[in-house]
Amino acid sequence: MFIVDCDCHNYWMSAEVLLPYLDGFFRDYFVRGEQPGPPGAFPHGHRAWLHPEGFSRADIKPQTQDEHLSLMREKHLDRYKIDCAILTGDEAMEASTLANPYYAAALVKAYNDWMVDWWLPKDPRFMGSIVISPTDPKTAADEIRRLGHHPRIVQVLASHGAQRPYGDPFYHPIYEACAEVGLPFAIHLGGQGGVNAHPIGAGPTTFFWETHALLPQSAMTHMASMIAHGVFEKWPELYFVVIECGIAWVPSVIWRLDSNFKALRKETPWLKMLPSEYLSRNIRFTTQPLEMPGTKIEHLWAALEAMDGRNTLMFASDYPHWDYDNLDGLHIPPAWREDILGGNALKVYRRIRALQPVANVA
Amino acid sequence: MFIVDCDCHNYWMSAEVLLPYLDGFFRDYFVRGEQPGPPGAFPHGHRAWLHPEGFSRADIKPQTQDEHLSLMREKHLDRYKIDCAILTGDEAMEASTLANPYYAAALVKAYNDWMVDWWLPKDPRFMGSIVISPTDPKTAADEIRRLGHHPRIVQVLASHGAQRPYGDPFYHPIYEACAEVGLPFAIHLGGQGGVNAHPIGAGPTTFFWETHALLPQSAMTHMASMIAHGVFEKWPELYFVVIECGIAWVPSVIWRLDSNFKALRKETPWLKMLPSEYLSRNIRFTTQPLEMPGTKIEHLWAALEAMDGRNTLMFASDYPHWDYDNLDGLHIPPAWREDILGGNALKVYRRIRALQPVANVA
Repeated sequence: MFIVDCDCHNYWMSAEVLLPYLDGFFRDYFVRGEQPGPPGAFPHGHRAWLHPEGFSRADIKPQTQDEHLSLMREKHLDRYKIDCAILTGDEAMEASTLANPYYAAALVKAYNDWMVDWWLPKDPRFMGSIVISPTDPKTAADEIRRLGHHPRIVQVLASHGAQRPYGDPFYHPIYEACAEVGLPFAIHLGGQGGVNAHPIGAGPTTFFWETHALLPQSAMTHMASMIAHGVFEKWPELYFVVIECGIAWVPSVIWRLDSNFKALRKETPWLKMLPSEYLSRNIRFTTQPLEMPGTKIEHLWAALEAMDGRNTLMFASDYPHWDYDNLDGLHIPPAWREDILGGNALKVYRRIRALQPVANVA
Repeated sequence: MFIVDCDCHNYWMSAEVLLPYLDGFFRDYFVRGEQPGPPGAFPHGHRAWLHPEGFSRADIKPQTQDEHLSLMREKHLDRYKIDCAILTGDEAMEASTLANPYYAAALVKAYNDWMVDWWLPKDPRFMGSIVISPTDPKTAADEIRRLGHHPRIVQVLASHGAQRPYGDPFYHPIYEACAEVGLPFAIHLGGQGGVNAHPIGAGPTTFFWETHALLPQSAMTHMASMIAHGVFEKWPELYFVVIECGIAWVPSVIWRLDSNFKALRKETPWLKMLPSEYLSRNIRFTTQPLEMPGTKIEHLWAALEAMDGRNTLMFASDYPHWDYDNLDGLHIPPAWREDILGGNALKVYRRIRALQPVANVA
């Protein structure tokens, strides 16, 4: 079985690793400008909900960048025989929260260069994501074109926190560039602060655990928006990957989208298929954190079946975060393991297959 | 079988029916002030998404207030042998969108008086809701105490569009008053405009059908907020009824709330039970519009079972709106019909039982 982890966090010990990749004014801004956290903090607008513990697993506290890598191999890649780990960065996607889109673009560009320079050569199992700041879609498109043909880059990645729903024409230059270089567009939980729109409906919630439970709402909105605006009619081969935004809500939302579309489709005459058909063809979800039902696992499995999870789900661990899912405990239907653990990812991330022999040797 | 319809809309042909119930300045404001619609429009801040058709069923277009009542009897109450219909008003709850909380309070008070005067005497099957504007909770509490002991008033009702999530201490005077008069607090889809918080996460969606499919997000937020702030610890017997906000999302949200609470419960030390346990004890959902799965009805029924739908669901028709659910087509597990069609409502709305003999005669 070929195993792909679609959400493996290659964070930095200090955002100062970006300094060699920042030019002129932005390097000065980083060094001498306001720091929104301890020394080495990444410039960003912080969300209003502070985690009452820490974001990393208690047993993973590397002291150096090298130790972060060695722990990742020991505790995760080797232990669970992961064949390929898609690196999703970490704080870099928080650049989307900054009011200054030029600074945000410079920061994600610096992250991407550091990722290509430092991470990709370290292990043949690593594949990279181009992190973009969606606040300036034209510059994001330039960044996608700059790095998008790298053989070990497999997707474009933005925070699921955004200024508006991702179907909006404002963002279409990003999808045009993704289609041009043949990469999926992925969103990952994050970016709930600064200039981004409020991540949940009906106003500010209060507590971290409460808010975190509701963050899938932004993903629901983006999914509906990408479908309704016809992104998948304009770019029929584009994959939209939803990372770390939960799974079990998908049937309830897609059923409601289908019903409403059937009744009121005249509002969006460019759509040729039902919302659920676009989902089957163009949208994929990563598993972590996979919901755990209170009483019967079959309640979850019915939801997975209703979204054709055998074909729409891809395994992700979220290593090394607090709510990490390991492979042993992954509670999916046993017959689907090969598809969800790697088969579906190989269809979405076609560049992995080209490198598969390399990955298998690792 | 005793049948209760928990969402039957007793609208007005013109909001001018409120004039006899408005005093002084507010009567003048209504008559001479800005009208946000055609003559007789209800003062409100309109939502940004305009329905591309109309809100009523195409076959129900009464010309007079009396015809509205006779059509409701003919097409709905008599036809489906409804024993009790809980009146939920219609535009009155949109008062929550107004910036002026004094005007909003005057308008809902006028609606409540009109409902008690005109509607309740017309048919013994009718039971009333006290509509409040949550923008001024202390005045809302006064209104609850003013009418809350009326034998045919069964709940307090607000729009699910709100300035902040309903668990916030700002709103607690409302629950204190509900507990004092022994009435449930209900929210109904609506109030997406004016001063209310954006109803969905990640910014403004574009189309009506897309937006309407996502409006359950506000209900998710309110449910989480009511639980997290400990409203059901302060008022253990309070029922929170969620009307017209969808059903199938409930398991996905409550599973995530339970998981996050277990990991980070120290943030809310006043909670004594799991979120799912508060749901079982204190929260009820009305069925319309009940989601329709794309392939197998069992996918929906698994979701209903996962939320203990036999005990947490109550039938609603949403008569006479465009997405009305009739009783014949209600796709719930057959063995649960008696509970969902009336049994559960009789437990939540205890005043119905006191009037049940009257209702049965009707």
